[in-house]
Amino acid sequence: MSEQTNVIFIGRKSVMNYVLAVLLQFDAGADEVILRARGKAISKAVDVAEIVKRRLYQDKVEVSSCKIDTEEVGEEPNVRKVSTIEIILKKKE
Amino acid sequence: MSEQTNVIFIGRKSVMNYVLAVLLQFDAGADEVILRARGKAISKAVDVAEIVKRRLYQDKVEVSSCKIDTEEVGEEPNVRKVSTIEIILKKKE
Repeated sequence: MSEQTNVIFIGRKSVMNYVLAVLLQFDAGADEVILRARGKAISKAVDVAEIVKRRLYQDKVEVSSCKIDTEEVGEEPNVRKVSTIEIILKKKE
Repeated sequence: MSEQTNVIFIGRKSVMNYVLAVLLQFDAGADEVILRARGKAISKAVDVAEIVKRRLYQDKVEVSSCKIDTEEVGEEPNVRKVSTIEIILKKKE
């Protein structure tokens, strides 16, 4: 199986919508799925990661990395800073 | 300076309220401040960590750990699962 990395941006859709997207990527052979979110969607990204880990892929998927950062969005003079999160879900060996 | 560990639970107050709480703990000599949040407050915890790191303690404080988990809240038969985050802010050497 070739190594694949897939990024899912968490936005306004429902949590289960994104959970399904993660499952589809793992089923398609991905070894790693990266969840990215910013602002209020950060909580949703954590929900997605936890649901995938606990309910669906118990003992098969782990959070290999969880990083937070800040991004600038918008254009001058309306630039504002927004927090971001990146959660990497990885298939266990 | 003795090693201290201090936990701040992020809830319904404003972001700046918690930023101030972190600053007070660092000023009081803490080497590490732990932010804990669950559910929708997770986004706020990330905001607090990023503001402390970028605006106030630039190059002096780093995120040494960021973990997500699931907790059960409520009592039977109304137990529900909620996502949690734990962010550790640490003074750089």
